[in-house]
Amino acid sequence: MNPGANIMLTPGPTPLPPQVREAMSRPILHHRTREFAELFAFTLSEMQYVYRTRNSVLLMTTSGTGGMESSAVNLLSPGDKALVHTTGVFGDRFVAILKAYGIEPVVAAEEWGRAADPGRLEAALKANPGVKAVFFQHTDTSTGVVNDVKALAETVRRNGDAVIVVDAVSGLAAEPLETDAWGLDVVVTGSQKGLMCAPGLAFAAVSPRAWKLCDAARLPRFYFDWRTMRKSLPDHETPYTPAITVIAGQAEALKLIRKEGIENVWKRTAELAGYARGKARELGLEMFAQDPSNILTALRLPSGVDGDDLIGRILAEEGISIAGGQGRLKGKIVRVAHMGYISRQDLDAGFKALAQRLAARKA
Amino acid sequence: MNPGANIMLTPGPTPLPPQVREAMSRPILHHRTREFAELFAFTLSEMQYVYRTRNSVLLMTTSGTGGMESSAVNLLSPGDKALVHTTGVFGDRFVAILKAYGIEPVVAAEEWGRAADPGRLEAALKANPGVKAVFFQHTDTSTGVVNDVKALAETVRRNGDAVIVVDAVSGLAAEPLETDAWGLDVVVTGSQKGLMCAPGLAFAAVSPRAWKLCDAARLPRFYFDWRTMRKSLPDHETPYTPAITVIAGQAEALKLIRKEGIENVWKRTAELAGYARGKARELGLEMFAQDPSNILTALRLPSGVDGDDLIGRILAEEGISIAGGQGRLKGKIVRVAHMGYISRQDLDAGFKALAQRLAARKA
Repeated sequence: MNPGANIMLTPGPTPLPPQVREAMSRPILHHRTREFAELFAFTLSEMQYVYRTRNSVLLMTTSGTGGMESSAVNLLSPGDKALVHTTGVFGDRFVAILKAYGIEPVVAAEEWGRAADPGRLEAALKANPGVKAVFFQHTDTSTGVVNDVKALAETVRRNGDAVIVVDAVSGLAAEPLETDAWGLDVVVTGSQKGLMCAPGLAFAAVSPRAWKLCDAARLPRFYFDWRTMRKSLPDHETPYTPAITVIAGQAEALKLIRKEGIENVWKRTAELAGYARGKARELGLEMFAQDPSNILTALRLPSGVDGDDLIGRILAEEGISIAGGQGRLKGKIVRVAHMGYISRQDLDAGFKALAQRLAARKA
Repeated sequence: MNPGANIMLTPGPTPLPPQVREAMSRPILHHRTREFAELFAFTLSEMQYVYRTRNSVLLMTTSGTGGMESSAVNLLSPGDKALVHTTGVFGDRFVAILKAYGIEPVVAAEEWGRAADPGRLEAALKANPGVKAVFFQHTDTSTGVVNDVKALAETVRRNGDAVIVVDAVSGLAAEPLETDAWGLDVVVTGSQKGLMCAPGLAFAAVSPRAWKLCDAARLPRFYFDWRTMRKSLPDHETPYTPAITVIAGQAEALKLIRKEGIENVWKRTAELAGYARGKARELGLEMFAQDPSNILTALRLPSGVDGDDLIGRILAEEGISIAGGQGRLKGKIVRVAHMGYISRQDLDAGFKALAQRLAARKA
């Protein structure tokens, strides 16, 4: 067991509210009962509230990556043109998924730490007419940036009729996102971040335009086939046995979000982000992202400090989880999350632990 | 809420032991910590014990169907020959998965209620040389049959070098299965049946022969790519955020299985099956399966009795979940499970509820 407080400042999983933990420990429901149907219908309708959409919402038992994959295989056919605007590890993951299915996407890439530039997207779209789907992140947890999803979506709409696929696995229920008002065709998310539940569920909000592509798409899919999920929706069922306990937890978390109000969740998350950045400034740590999101703060470390060693010691000695860098940022940054059920007190503990170790180094 | 006892006699999910429920409600671990690595390593090593194998075991956050799909996409390439020996809904699902990926399998089919006939398999293999993979079920929950997996595997080995893929989603930790001694190349299972945990996890035990095919296979895959999972195994990690709470529950359930001993689990399940069949005989109900498994008893209903109505009333009035028929058996049979954490007392309650309603009908 870890010592200390078991504080999670990681960008997914995030800590679980007690109501969510209690719900996951209830005697399990069978998934072909009226009681489950009610739970399932409630969950999807509350997800529409969080997504700000009237589009259909699908639930999949999988990691966020499975949800991302579902958006590729349900929209495209062999030979289709696709575009990925990447801002880090998760944009690169869209590229890898598409390549695995034989689609060589056009890639617009930003320097890590920068948000996706709508001008660059526009140039890429103009240079590559006939793109069928554009993929980008809402927030990229690898670098801590937030994209201007609204501006990016407008850019896509101005330059053809590609469907807009947004990976909001880490951004939903943390940063503002307006699925319908911004015209987003597919928004994918996961249960374990802003949604304050355990990992195991992915969701996709799917627009009528996206359904049209889905019905015509010819990439192979079975478990991730949205058409099969759509068939089960009228019965408030999933085609295959879902992660029932996680859904029970998700429903409780959605009640908390509804009670607070989604705009208030965004506001609280923004305030918490400001609080974390104030703490970082006190420590003299520079922010990695030039276009920082409210979900997490990525901090550059003084030269000579190994981030992975630093967070490893904090976890071992105090039971506080802070994330390190991913990919080419491994060891170079630490990432302190402030979304979901993470509190000001949690941040205080995390920054205190960072401060002590960085001060000890100087002394 | 359902009234009454909340008794589950369904073949997945099965009821959860209190230890499992408690584990799922603990504060969540992050999946890139030493503590999680220990939990993960323990889970996979105990799964080797249950599988009776030294082969590598992979864990996927998905339904059992996702695990089945993973066995298709990781073993085959476009144009490959595959054979499915089907005994019901789940064999037909293998056929549908393969077709979704452009593989038109050879299908050997049994009359529903009959186990797979090794003679029929042999004839199909002789008529179709060059089959690369043979797929069949350990037990098929749709009809309640158990296959002679050992004899089927020997038949495959005698007739070429196809890899043997067994869907033991419902049979593992209930009916005897010997992955290594019987030479099974891939055995897929799910967390929510004999393994006594909540749904959300699939496992695959993969032999060196199967790994060789996996490395050469060219069907597209990303989330279900076993090669990516293999890369993370030395670090006791998953490539993507897994269903951490369900894994915590699974580890507790595996402790219970280890404590009882897997042979004793098989024996207890067989005894419970005998007990259930005695109860069915008392009611004058005929068994559907001619080659019945120990995991569940499928019972034909007297003509004029609608099974779905019957179990619907039992659930609504007493809170006891019994499964109905699937596919073409809808309404015609009921299925009473006796695996996992289901007890003799649960069976007593279920059969009493059935007896009362069937007697009321006659009166």
